[in-house]
Order: sequence, then C-alpha cells, then structure tokens
Amino acid sequence: MKNIIIASTSTLHGGSYLDYILPTLESHFKNCKSILFIPYARPSGISHDEYTAKVALAFASISISVKGIHEFENPEDAIKNAEGIFTGGGNTFLLVTQLYKNNIMQLLAETVKNGTPYLGTSAGSNICGLSMQTTNDMPIIYPPSFQTLGLIPFNLNPHYLDPDTQSLHMGETRETRIKEFHAFNSIPVLGLREGSWLEVKGDKITLKGSLKARLFTKNNNPEELETESDLSDLK
Amino acid sequence: MKNIIIASTSTLHGGSYLDYILPTLESHFKNCKSILFIPYARPSGISHDEYTAKVALAFASISISVKGIHEFENPEDAIKNAEGIFTGGGNTFLLVTQLYKNNIMQLLAETVKNGTPYLGTSAGSNICGLSMQTTNDMPIIYPPSFQTLGLIPFNLNPHYLDPDTQSLHMGETRETRIKEFHAFNSIPVLGLREGSWLEVKGDKITLKGSLKARLFTKNNNPEELETESDLSDLK
Repeated sequence: MKNIIIASTSTLHGGSYLDYILPTLESHFKNCKSILFIPYARPSGISHDEYTAKVALAFASISISVKGIHEFENPEDAIKNAEGIFTGGGNTFLLVTQLYKNNIMQLLAETVKNGTPYLGTSAGSNICGLSMQTTNDMPIIYPPSFQTLGLIPFNLNPHYLDPDTQSLHMGETRETRIKEFHAFNSIPVLGLREGSWLEVKGDKITLKGSLKARLFTKNNNPEELETESDLSDLK
Repeated sequence: MKNIIIASTSTLHGGSYLDYILPTLESHFKNCKSILFIPYARPSGISHDEYTAKVALAFASISISVKGIHEFENPEDAIKNAEGIFTGGGNTFLLVTQLYKNNIMQLLAETVKNGTPYLGTSAGSNICGLSMQTTNDMPIIYPPSFQTLGLIPFNLNPHYLDPDTQSLHMGETRETRIKEFHAFNSIPVLGLREGSWLEVKGDKITLKGSLKARLFTKNNNPEELETESDLSDLK
C-alpha cells in the first residue's frame, strides 16, 4: 500500500530545514531506523555528501539515521533494501537525469508503489507526478525523458506562487506558465503552496497543511481547494 | 555581417506591445518592407494567426508588413527569402521543438549570421544564445535538443529578475537557478532586465537600453554591467 508524503518545500520562511513537518515525518517513518536519501537534485550545486549531511542533521532530531544513495555501490540494491526513502529538492532536470542514468526511475516507482514509505520535497515531489513538465526549474541538463514516477495520476507545481499584483515585472506568472502547459497537455496540475503537502495512503490522496492549494485543469478556471480535500479521484 | 537585436521583453509594464523599442526597430529594419514572423512560442497558448496579427499591428505603425512563417508552404524558403526576421516570446521549449521539427534551426542560424536583420524578444532572444538552458520557461514539451542558434557566444536569461528581499517565498531565486546552471556548465549567462537589449553588429555586441545587466560567470561573483558595455569578448 502506498505511503507517501509529497511536500511543496523543505523549508518555510524563518524556519529551519524540515522543521515544520518533522512531527508528521516522525509518524510517517515510525517503522524506520534509517532512511535512504536521494541527493541528486543538488540545490545550488552542493555536493551529495554536503546535502546528505544536512538531511542527516534534521532527521537526527527524530532519531532516524540517513544514508545517501551515492554511498552505496549499487543504487538499485540501496532502493530495494531501504526502510524508507527521501528525495530532496534542488534541480528537477538534474534529479531526473540522474535517476535515469542510474537506471532506477522505474525501480523507485515500483518500490514506493509496493509500500516503502517515501518523502519528497520540491524536486523530490515534482517527480511523484506523471511528468516533470510543470517544474519551475531551469533546464541545466538534458534528461533522457520528462516522464517521472507517476505515484499520483496528475502533475504538481511545488512552491506554487500567486501572482504579485504589485509587481511591474512582465515575465509570465506561474499561472500563465501552467496555462501554456495545458495548451498541449490535459494532465491536471496541482499548485502546492509552501507549507502544504499531499498525504498518499494507498489510493487515498489528501491535501494537508494549513493552506489551500490551487488546482488547474485544462479549459477550466483554476480552483482553490481547502486543506483536507480528498484528491483521490483527480486525474 | 550580423545585424541583430536581442531584447529581454516585448512589453514594458504600462506600455503596449513593442512600443518602447519601435524607434530602434524602425532603424534596424529600415531596408525591409516586410518581415517574417516566427510565432512558434505561442505565449499563453495563443494561435499562430492571433500572435501574428498582434505583431502585424505593432509593425504597421512603422510601415512594415508582417507574415507568419506558418502561412508559407515551405518554412525553409520563407527564411531564405525573408527581408528581416522576428521571433517572438512565449514558451522556449515549444519554440525550440518547432524549430527542430521544421528542420530550420540551422538554416535560421546561418541566415542571420549571413546578415538578414533579426529581432528576438524573450524566448526569441533565448534562442540566440548557445543553448536554451537558462530559460525561465516550463518544459511543457520535450525538445530534441537544448542547443540553439549560437548567434552570440554565451547564454541569456531574459526577463532577469532581482531577488525580492521582502519575499517570504523559499523557492529558488533566479540567481540561485543560474548558479545551479554553472555547477554543470561554464558558459557565461547574461541576465537581461526588462527594457534592456543587445545590439549585435558583426562581431560587436553592445548592451543597450537604460538599465544595467547582470553577468554570471562560473566560480565568480555576479557583476553589474553598465548600459553601452561592449560584450564582444565575452565567452
């Protein structure tokens, strides 16, 4: 049975890494003494070791140890044997490229579908959707495909940002970009504001956190969803 | 001899389409009775016809007629025979996909290098660099390559946006995203603020408009460049 947390962000303004969601993670990973961390997205280009150390520090406070997938000789075995898995944020193009390069995209999807508890934040959440095509990241590397894990039957836009009505900037808003996506794709897109997450338990998908989320579907006006909304039928 | 204008944006806040740069375009396209428009980037998903009509309206005020490349039976002939060429903004992934699909990426590069006057705005400027890897756009479609026209020996970030120091948003700033690009690439990136453009005359590249531009090079602190800066040696 799927057991997944898909979070918009790792860090809230003024908070420290993962602190807002640690109580939830303590329960989510309650049967794990250690978890496998996938640091491939490398935010700001930090190394796999640096990134893993940062994550280990946060998880130490809930008494869970962390090992980076890059520390294993065989990444496939690392995934198969993991008690729990966390994929951190950073650049989604880089993350997806590395998952394909190491031949673990499909294995990771199967493993999580079979019940290994999973946490994603930001880029690590983006890959839970059908494709990475609604990421906000720069295409710093060319991935072999935009297809991702498909753990949920729609796409995500993490760090969803409402238009700034005071701005004089004329670049596209997030909403305009998602509208462009829907000119060519019919997959629903859920804009997850920072502080929101999806809880996936088997086939049940629930919006968590204190904020509303913004749902974009092709040819319709966007819709605001209340926290605790059931998204199990969205596709 | 190359004769190119590479503009950050088509439209300034409070202005109308292309109005801030029309006097420059009148001189740039002074030998053109008509220009070829490439509408492939389709901002907000508008059609090729709608987009071309919008551009024709703006150019009518400087007595230049506009024909969309989609109106020609053979896009290669359209490019070869054009008096001048304008590629408009929208989604860079879509634009690049269409240029490859129609087999005109290389022909367009050669034609502009040989002297056909060219104007790019936003996505149409992004493609003037070595690659589209510093676009801000969403990957709504999977292009066969990220390589672009290479009319200048560096990359661009149009609509460059300074970090908002008041923001509580934790998603990456533009500067962080470009830093991630430089973790894997050594190509310089010029952040062009809205209202700036590059003028390319032969091998001479000059920053124009009233604003500074922000230059990012690998392993260095970003640098502010004054208007009228000579960028001919940047690579």
